[in-house]
Formats: sequence, structure tokens, C-alpha cells
Amino acid sequence: MAENGGRAAGADVGDLVARARRGEPRAVARLISLVENESPRLRAVMAALAPLTGGARIVGLTGSPGVGKSTTTSALVTAYRRAGKRVGVLAVDPSSPFSGGALLGDRVRMSEHALDPGVYVRSMATRGHLGGLSWAVPQAVRVLDAAGCDVVLVETVGVGQSEVDIAAQADTTVVLLAPGMGDGVQAAKAGILEVGDLFVVNKADRDGAGTTVRELQHMLGLGPPRAPGEWRPSVVRTVAARGEGVDELVEALEKHHGWLVEHDALAARRERRAANEVESIALTALRARMGQLGGDQRLGALATRVRDGDLDPYAAADLLVEGVAEA
Amino acid sequence: MAENGGRAAGADVGDLVARARRGEPRAVARLISLVENESPRLRAVMAALAPLTGGARIVGLTGSPGVGKSTTTSALVTAYRRAGKRVGVLAVDPSSPFSGGALLGDRVRMSEHALDPGVYVRSMATRGHLGGLSWAVPQAVRVLDAAGCDVVLVETVGVGQSEVDIAAQADTTVVLLAPGMGDGVQAAKAGILEVGDLFVVNKADRDGAGTTVRELQHMLGLGPPRAPGEWRPSVVRTVAARGEGVDELVEALEKHHGWLVEHDALAARRERRAANEVESIALTALRARMGQLGGDQRLGALATRVRDGDLDPYAAADLLVEGVAEA
Repeated sequence: MAENGGRAAGADVGDLVARARRGEPRAVARLISLVENESPRLRAVMAALAPLTGGARIVGLTGSPGVGKSTTTSALVTAYRRAGKRVGVLAVDPSSPFSGGALLGDRVRMSEHALDPGVYVRSMATRGHLGGLSWAVPQAVRVLDAAGCDVVLVETVGVGQSEVDIAAQADTTVVLLAPGMGDGVQAAKAGILEVGDLFVVNKADRDGAGTTVRELQHMLGLGPPRAPGEWRPSVVRTVAARGEGVDELVEALEKHHGWLVEHDALAARRERRAANEVESIALTALRARMGQLGGDQRLGALATRVRDGDLDPYAAADLLVEGVAEA
Repeated sequence: MAENGGRAAGADVGDLVARARRGEPRAVARLISLVENESPRLRAVMAALAPLTGGARIVGLTGSPGVGKSTTTSALVTAYRRAGKRVGVLAVDPSSPFSGGALLGDRVRMSEHALDPGVYVRSMATRGHLGGLSWAVPQAVRVLDAAGCDVVLVETVGVGQSEVDIAAQADTTVVLLAPGMGDGVQAAKAGILEVGDLFVVNKADRDGAGTTVRELQHMLGLGPPRAPGEWRPSVVRTVAARGEGVDELVEALEKHHGWLVEHDALAARRERRAANEVESIALTALRARMGQLGGDQRLGALATRVRDGDLDPYAAADLLVEGVAEA
């Protein structure tokens, strides 16, 4: 990672961006590495990218492990490539206990696109970062957007809140389910129903697919009453491994995009996404400031006192924050 | 909630704490409500509790939906009650799309303990809070600890990082699995293997239990080499619904506690937990300060410019943070 950062820092940012826009995968890779590694040139990169963004449609895909997110993502890539679109894929991996990076599985399943210059696939690990690397994923989306991707697919395991949040920052959020992955109550507990613009019941050739669709439609109907003209989530059945239902999914995505544009909702969503980005970066900066002030050392001393009951955690936090305000 | 907060604010904090220590469930409930609602008296409560904490053993239980966390928690409560211990249970619910609160399921499964004054059960919803209500869960643990619980069980759905983090802040973290919940690679993706001090394969009477145990042992063996004297996670088989294996689980918990004490690791873990608490509260305070400075309004204006490509998100964050430092 240091090597990547070093090499990229040596290159001219403007040149890298120009090459990324011409579709050179290595330039895209370097730009994303700059983001992930918080390179000193990150700010220059982001300033250069800002005017180039806004052209890509951002689609989030989320769902529990085992529902077939990678397979569905891969099938979508195939469909979009057939339509001549450039596609970026970010596979956000909430954790890998051993490597700190993404597991082989996703890459293997996406390997059919490995040699296609119109597809850029990147895995991002989020483990160990405060807020699930929430600041880095949207920055990587910016890179792919500025590089000229027509569609950016952001795939995350969606049971935890932070991963759901990542997917929910898309223009369109697709929630995937599969038959036999637990009953409706468990799905509701996972908290992913309310973020979905579209629902996919994948592996729809399995027993219980009809039940899952009905349960889902029932639970979607249980939600708070929707305003007139509000988007009504639809349910698509797929067998992504065989490409079945994928055209219908693309059509549903198209329909949702049309609805967003028609209802002035796209600009509002993108503004909300930008607000989340800015706030997340600002919080990270404030946190770093606590550290720069010797906060980490002070934090250790304060934590000892809290552990021993000499100080309560709120009083300790006050003492920690004081230094930041004084900076 | 407002009513709860209001009533509690009317009562004397010292009196509430004294009553909680005598085991009055209503006093415990009020104290936790003060924490959840961020009552103005929260600081007074925390200051009063600080010297009373440290007596409870904190056990985290985490695992994917459907592995039987609630059933196992309930079986553990039964075992600890038989041994005459006072037990607190926090069931942390990462989300409920409809009520914002906990779903009925957990409460129903815990209902056998509803009339036992030696057991205090509380569900906490984490949805919609920054960082998964990470500041409130440890504060609620403090309440139960100070109230005189011998054991506090913190149960969370553990696929998302924030929920895993909650469980991992315990003295001992128990990761539950069940046969047929997806293959080993999927379990590894869930990122819960490395946080476990103990592993439970529940529903061990089902087909595939042996395979799950073997896969688990294999994956645990794949981890980085452990230092001599380091704790080696063990695997316990249970059928919690019938109480099978629960005595073995209690014994394994006891063994891990003994190891922690013997290796001076308990104090270190608790200091780390305190540091996380303090940092999380400090960040929340800094975030509030951004809001108080009209940050929300400014954030909206900055987000519009970022969305339109006039400003990059880092430059926008700089402008947002400036106000906080100047306060």
C-alpha cells in the first residue's frame, strides 16, 4: 500500500485523472488507492475530480450473506456491457479476518469481466475503520464517476447498519433476498427493508420463493403510509446464476431512475449523499485533531481513571474535547 | 419516552441509584431510559454510577440472525440464576423498521424470566443513531453493573461491524453459529471469527453440526500464529432450546474469565472499553458542536456545492470544521 501511494504521489494528479477518463484501469486503480490510503495528494485528487462527477448512476446492492449479491452484480454488469455502458463495481467487504482485504470469492465470481476494459472492479475492505470506511467508499465512487463510468454498482453485505448506510447512499438501492434465509421477522430485524427502492428475490427457482415474495410484499405493505406520488418499491424475481430476470431488474432500475428525475428526487438524494460525505470527513478531521493534540495519550490516562471508577466517561470526554476546541 | 425522562428527572438521582442497587427493576429501567434519552441528568447519573462499577462480568453474545442468540442467552440466564447470580440482559437490536424499538420476538423468548427479580432484561434499538448507539450501550451496561448484577449479557446481531463492535467490548465475547447457515467463507465474510473468545455451535442436533464445528476449528486455525500463553478460543456445542451444553458453556466462560485475571488481561480490556466509550462520547459532543454552530444549515449549503461539482468534499469539510475550532 505504501508503494502504491508512493508511486501515485510521484505521478501528476492531472495526468492520472486524464488517463482514468480515457479508461486506463491502472490510473483508476491508483486514484482509488490514493483515496484508501489517505495519501497527502488526496485533496488534490478530489479537487480535480469534483467538476467531472455527476454523470454516473450509482446503484447500491445489499443483502445478507448468501443471497447472491456478487452473482447478481456480475449478471448486471453483463447486461450493461451488452448495452454498451461502462461499468464500475465496488465490492465493499465489511471485514476479512485474515488479510484485511477482500476474500477471493467475489473476485472469482467476477472473473468473467476481468479482461473487459469497459468494466472496473474493485474490492474495498472496511474492517477496522471508524464508521466502516464510510468516508472512503463515496470517494471511490467519485473516482469511478469522474473516470466516465455510466453505472457504478456498490455491493455490500447488508445486515449491519454501516454497510446498509453505504448501499443506501446510492441513487437507487437494491435489496436482495433469497428463499429460506430466515423468516420475515428476521428479515425485518436486519433493517434492510426500509432502505430498498427495489427488491430482488434471487434464487427464485428454489422452494419457498413464492412465500418469500409474498412475505416481502406483505412487510412492505406494513410500512408507514406513503405520500401520493411517492415511489412504491417493486419486487423482481431473479435466478442471477442463469441470468434469469436480469433484464427485468435492469428495466426496474431504469424505471426508478426515471421516477427520480421526474420527481426532482435525484438532485435531493445526491445532495444528501454529499452532506453525509462532508460530515463524515469533518468528523474524521476532528478525530484526528484529538489525536494530534496528544489525545491518544491523554485518552489512555483518562480511560484508566474511568476503568477504575475515579471519573465517569462524560467528564472524561469533556476533558478530551477541551483540547480540540483550544487548538 | 418523554414521560419516562420527565418522571426520572423529577426523582433524585442518588435515590434512583440506591433503589437500583437494592434491585428495584423500575429504578434500573428509569436509569437506562435516562441514558437512552440523553436526559439532562445523564451526567449526574454517570457521575453517581462511576464508583459503583466494575463488579459485573460483561459477556457479549453475537451471531447471524437465526443462530439462536436469544435462546442461548435465556438458557445462560437460567444457569446463572440456578447459581444464585443476579443477571442483566441487554438485547441490542440493530434496527426495527416499523417501531424504532425492539421486536416482540426476543421479549417473548425471554418471558420465562419476566417475573424473576434477580433478572433484568432490556431491549435497546440502535437504528438511526450515529455509530449504532455505540455510546448508549456501554452506559446501559454501567447501569446494570452499578445496580449489582453479577453478570451482564449483551446480545447483538453480529454481521454488521457496529454490532460486532458492541459485543466485542465485553470481557468475554461469545460468537454463535448454527449448522447450515452458509459455508465457511460466508462466515468469514461476516467478520465475526476474530472477535470471539468462545464459539458456540448451537442447534448441534441438526445435520451438518459436525461439519460446522470442523470448518470453524479449521478457520480458527488459519488465523495468525498466536503468542505463547495467548488465549486459544474453544468451541462449545449446544442445543440451547433444550438446555444441552449450557453447563459446558458456563464452564468455558468461567475458564476464560480465569485466564483474563491470570494474565492481567481483564484490566487491559476494561481500559480499552473505557477508552472507546470516552472517544465515542467526545465525538458525539464535537458533532453536536458542529450542529450548534449552525453547522446543519452550513452543511446543506456546502452539500449543494459539492453535489454540483463546485467544491470537493474535503474542501467543504474544512469549511465546516473551521467553525468548530473557532467556538
